[in-house]
Amino acid sequence: MTTRADGRSPDDLREVTITRGWLEQAEGSVLVEFGSTRVLVAASVTQGVPRWRKGSGLGWVTSEYAMLPRATNTRNDRESVKGRIGGRTHEISRLIGRSLRAVIDYAALGENTIVLDCDVLQADGGTRTASITGAYVALADAVSWLRDRNALNGEPLTGSVAAVSVGVVGETPMLDLAYSEDSVAEVDLNVVTDGTGRFIEVQGTAEGAPFDRAMMDTLLDLGVAGTARLTELQRAALAS
Amino acid sequence: MTTRADGRSPDDLREVTITRGWLEQAEGSVLVEFGSTRVLVAASVTQGVPRWRKGSGLGWVTSEYAMLPRATNTRNDRESVKGRIGGRTHEISRLIGRSLRAVIDYAALGENTIVLDCDVLQADGGTRTASITGAYVALADAVSWLRDRNALNGEPLTGSVAAVSVGVVGETPMLDLAYSEDSVAEVDLNVVTDGTGRFIEVQGTAEGAPFDRAMMDTLLDLGVAGTARLTELQRAALAS
Amino acid sequence: MTTRADGRSPDDLREVTITRGWLEQAEGSVLVEFGSTRVLVAASVTQGVPRWRKGSGLGWVTSEYAMLPRATNTRNDRESVKGRIGGRTHEISRLIGRSLRAVIDYAALGENTIVLDCDVLQADGGTRTASITGAYVALADAVSWLRDRNALNGEPLTGSVAAVSVGVVGETPMLDLAYSEDSVAEVDLNVVTDGTGRFIEVQGTAEGAPFDRAMMDTLLDLGVAGTARLTELQRAALAS
Amino acid sequence: MTTRADGRSPDDLREVTITRGWLEQAEGSVLVEFGSTRVLVAASVTQGVPRWRKGSGLGWVTSEYAMLPRATNTRNDRESVKGRIGGRTHEISRLIGRSLRAVIDYAALGENTIVLDCDVLQADGGTRTASITGAYVALADAVSWLRDRNALNGEPLTGSVAAVSVGVVGETPMLDLAYSEDSVAEVDLNVVTDGTGRFIEVQGTAEGAPFDRAMMDTLLDLGVAGTARLTELQRAALAS
Amino acid sequence: MTTRADGRSPDDLREVTITRGWLEQAEGSVLVEFGSTRVLVAASVTQGVPRWRKGSGLGWVTSEYAMLPRATNTRNDRESVKGRIGGRTHEISRLIGRSLRAVIDYAALGENTIVLDCDVLQADGGTRTASITGAYVALADAVSWLRDRNALNGEPLTGSVAAVSVGVVGETPMLDLAYSEDSVAEVDLNVVTDGTGRFIEVQGTAEGAPFDRAMMDTLLDLGVAGTARLTELQRAALAS
Amino acid sequence: MTTRADGRSPDDLREVTITRGWLEQAEGSVLVEFGSTRVLVAASVTQGVPRWRKGSGLGWVTSEYAMLPRATNTRNDRESVKGRIGGRTHEISRLIGRSLRAVIDYAALGENTIVLDCDVLQADGGTRTASITGAYVALADAVSWLRDRNALNGEPLTGSVAAVSVGVVGETPMLDLAYSEDSVAEVDLNVVTDGTGRFIEVQGTAEGAPFDRAMMDTLLDLGVAGTARLTELQRAALAS
Repeated sequence: MTTRADGRSPDDLREVTITRGWLEQAEGSVLVEFGSTRVLVAASVTQGVPRWRKGSGLGWVTSEYAMLPRATNTRNDRESVKGRIGGRTHEISRLIGRSLRAVIDYAALGENTIVLDCDVLQADGGTRTASITGAYVALADAVSWLRDRNALNGEPLTGSVAAVSVGVVGETPMLDLAYSEDSVAEVDLNVVTDGTGRFIEVQGTAEGAPFDRAMMDTLLDLGVAGTARLTELQRAALAS
Repeated sequence: MTTRADGRSPDDLREVTITRGWLEQAEGSVLVEFGSTRVLVAASVTQGVPRWRKGSGLGWVTSEYAMLPRATNTRNDRESVKGRIGGRTHEISRLIGRSLRAVIDYAALGENTIVLDCDVLQADGGTRTASITGAYVALADAVSWLRDRNALNGEPLTGSVAAVSVGVVGETPMLDLAYSEDSVAEVDLNVVTDGTGRFIEVQGTAEGAPFDRAMMDTLLDLGVAGTARLTELQRAALAS
Repeated sequence: MTTRADGRSPDDLREVTITRGWLEQAEGSVLVEFGSTRVLVAASVTQGVPRWRKGSGLGWVTSEYAMLPRATNTRNDRESVKGRIGGRTHEISRLIGRSLRAVIDYAALGENTIVLDCDVLQADGGTRTASITGAYVALADAVSWLRDRNALNGEPLTGSVAAVSVGVVGETPMLDLAYSEDSVAEVDLNVVTDGTGRFIEVQGTAEGAPFDRAMMDTLLDLGVAGTARLTELQRAALAS
Repeated sequence: MTTRADGRSPDDLREVTITRGWLEQAEGSVLVEFGSTRVLVAASVTQGVPRWRKGSGLGWVTSEYAMLPRATNTRNDRESVKGRIGGRTHEISRLIGRSLRAVIDYAALGENTIVLDCDVLQADGGTRTASITGAYVALADAVSWLRDRNALNGEPLTGSVAAVSVGVVGETPMLDLAYSEDSVAEVDLNVVTDGTGRFIEVQGTAEGAPFDRAMMDTLLDLGVAGTARLTELQRAALAS
Repeated sequence: MTTRADGRSPDDLREVTITRGWLEQAEGSVLVEFGSTRVLVAASVTQGVPRWRKGSGLGWVTSEYAMLPRATNTRNDRESVKGRIGGRTHEISRLIGRSLRAVIDYAALGENTIVLDCDVLQADGGTRTASITGAYVALADAVSWLRDRNALNGEPLTGSVAAVSVGVVGETPMLDLAYSEDSVAEVDLNVVTDGTGRFIEVQGTAEGAPFDRAMMDTLLDLGVAGTARLTELQRAALAS
Repeated sequence: MTTRADGRSPDDLREVTITRGWLEQAEGSVLVEFGSTRVLVAASVTQGVPRWRKGSGLGWVTSEYAMLPRATNTRNDRESVKGRIGGRTHEISRLIGRSLRAVIDYAALGENTIVLDCDVLQADGGTRTASITGAYVALADAVSWLRDRNALNGEPLTGSVAAVSVGVVGETPMLDLAYSEDSVAEVDLNVVTDGTGRFIEVQGTAEGAPFDRAMMDTLLDLGVAGTARLTELQRAALAS
């Protein structure tokens, strides 16, 4: 059986830690680690909603993702200095926002906005899936913060959300790729599910040759098994 | 059996037309129509490659997607006037580029760059899938243009690419959604395959409730059947 | 007598076609062609006027001009990607807007705004004059659309507008220059008139040596004769 | 006969002063005043030409125009703060550059670049024509600076350039409009000629109703008479 | 004793001139010269305050600083053309605004805004200190303009403001550095005081080796002596 | 004697911790905490220097400062999203860079560049002084990294750098202000010294009334005492 550089078997997650309350001032905050990947998530609650939604009685949840310039092995220029946000940043910010909105009941949230800022402090593959997994926990804490202030119209969370990457490396399907694996993967697929394993988002790309339906099925199975374990870790973190 | 607003059955494509050579000056060009969706694709060949690739002997293929301000039912501000490109535009440009690069042998292409500009003249759903489907044909014409000038090191096209949207509307899985369907879909999934039906890219999103594995399987089947028909239409267009 | 590359005599227009209703969703739209120059004009009506004009009872008409990246013989970078609009684009957008406003009675238009988007799909000289000539027809259709909805306070169109380029090539004054002529012209002059041949805008530039008053007179005569013929073609298009 | 607010007759210029050497460090500089309009022009010489012109043996001349925020009666936001240059600024910068290039022999200039910065310190109408008129004098001084250093391949100035505005106010054709006149003019026309009265650029706009050929002729005559007087003032300034 | 390039002794100011009313339209304006450094300051009064201050009954004072492209020995690109404001510009604009606000009683000013635009026409060191010194005079004139219109709630000026640079050149502490001195200074310190010599702002930087407390004391003494003389010149200018 | 909200006496620092090696991939990294203020500093080494310095044999050190959007009590928009860097960010980035360059021997550093990225994860006053204090330690580690690779031409560090804020709150001079103190301070002064207590940078601002020389002296004494203690903490951190 294949063993990976860090000794994991193909269907192992890296060590995952979820530290709540890492920031003193945010309504929810999490430092989430998938191995060496380290993302700081802050959930900010503001009363009111964007202009296009005012008076609807409905809330809003959105997200912004970014990387510190030296999160990676070589330094990247800051997007603030370049004066524009790159395509990858846009794409991931949108993915995180969509994923979390899938478990939100806007009417129950009321006219409140929650922004999830996911800032990658250190990157070693899987930053978008770590962000989503951590952001759910920060979101849950922000919802609790609103609940404690009687600022909700019901229970806005209709479920939980977790995400993991799967891929094919050297023809072997693998779970939760580290950067050294991701950079040589033939297929790269990100799976976002709710706490019952149903799909919220699936994004798969053939980095090498196109792949067949059997491989698609294997990867989806692997991904769903991974998010099931992340769901447990989220529950444990929220229970502590 | 469900009938759709325009009389199609759930697994029907809209009328698809692929008009080659719509521009006189581009090395390849296609006006592609999926029903009322109308995209002008121009393939531009330039000798040489971006700086980071120089001297590698390898070529490059990339894409830019945009919509005219009045492609849609109400006018949108121009991104050039706003001074920045939106997240959706970035995301689709990247998807088109990745999809076409999946069937390119860079060494055979040699140090040439092909840019595929996909400009949506009229939008009625499926603009990204129409763009990919049309872009493949424009790319094939641009490759022929290079071949005619003996500027290749072999055959750069390792296959063809087609794309189609599938979705769930009113619990019914449907192929090739028009805007009126797309805007109320519970699930939205874009499938990009090569000419043999293998996957190049899959992007699925639960717009409403998360969806289960059985629905995922149904949608993938529907999508692959759709791209198979589009592959035939591409072949016919290139043969004419 | 001088014959031109495409067989025209110096005072001939290229073949001009004006196709109304090219877009299904715009309140007015025209595909206008001056030879190989092809511009898609969309007229968008919105209720209300810009902030600085609110409550005045007066309407507003404005225009934006742009070129697709491969409208020209070699590809140009997109202004949206560059993050700024170039001087030439600004200049032409302003010219088109001014020209059309010259035949608008703002009080009769009421507090409605009409935006004319002129997007050059293929460029072969004369894109600004084709844009103005086509935009008048799209504007007339947008005004009819408002009239059909009883949304006017009178007849906002006080006349028609047409435009044509004239120039001096090899010492010969010529009408409606194609790109191959324009690029070597010693003098370049754009004439915008109303339907009775009176001047709305004249812009003349010595590209080579300065030119004398006699040449100015010749060029103005040639231009006015050209716009007279374009005025007839506009009338025919609107009558069909 | 009509008398104007400031006592001028319709064919009078305002008081024009041209002060050379207003800056100590620039290779040429002029403070030019047309009445209360006050423009500081700096000519900057640099060895070498823009990349696209390198190795051609030819020089380059270009211009940038701007207004200080409080040049006008009410303060305008800075374009540097807005992060983008407006259409009017672009248009005038391009006009000034084109006008001066009309009297330059690039081969005689050699691979040198001269940039003319025209900054409006106080605006009272006619800022673009004052800029052109002053810029010619600063350009001549910059050319002399190069000549003194034996850095030319011949005489780069093939003539002089002057510019003036004419317009129709209350049906009366008038020369050199002040802001109070310009803002109510029915027709606005800028005339740029060389020192012999031949045309370099003509830009005329009907601000009110379109105007006929007879009015065009009158305005051109008035403009050419105006630039003739400005040419004399330029000669006097350069002789002193 | 050390003598400086221009014959000054170390504790001499350059010749300072303050010309009020240089602009006809601004509510206050000053052309201030410290030797060859020449800054045009315009004070613009507008009724009302920025949104975040509305309804407070308090006024606002702010400043923007900029340099013309050829104010310096070699030409600098315009920040408007670059599309972004540099760090140095930001820093100086903020310094000027803070310095002037230190002598403003916002309640007495009422809900009026005064913007001080400091545009450097010619730079020879000390542009920020000349700007502050001139801006105070323009501000005083703008306040008088408001007073004349009974638009104040009291006396908004609680004092005067003057600024000067000091530095260490070749181990000698010097007052009011010209560019040739500033560019080789080991220490550079800007002192802003009110009319009684108390500190509003002090910014000191070791350009070479760090400096000790004794040198700090010497420089502060020198600076305060300099601003005392500038305060007299401001009073004289305002009295004339 | 005055006691502060957190129980400190006026001349106490907050608890300061300096954690080296917080990032696995950077050549130097420090998480520095001044009470609740938490800044992550990454030092990135690259071979080579900016273009304007090439071939000089001299190295370069620079810095960029930024805050995460939820570092503060309420969320701030990202500068990358706004598309421009604010004045405060510019000012602090420049201050940090200047401060560190004061102890660098560029010739000994050789043609290497070190970038210090200071990202504020949590802000409670003193973020710029914490950044400088931490950046020195990260810089020292980056220099060691170069030394271990024999990539230096000598010892580039000519001293150490530490920084602290002092201020006047309720007429009491205080060291190392927390946000609640800083926001009501009458005077705010930042002191940057080397390890021997000599000044590298001093920036003082009267937020309320101007202050006199005696207060300036007291604040400088307080600041120098504070940086002396920080210097010891830096030494201890580097020794561990």
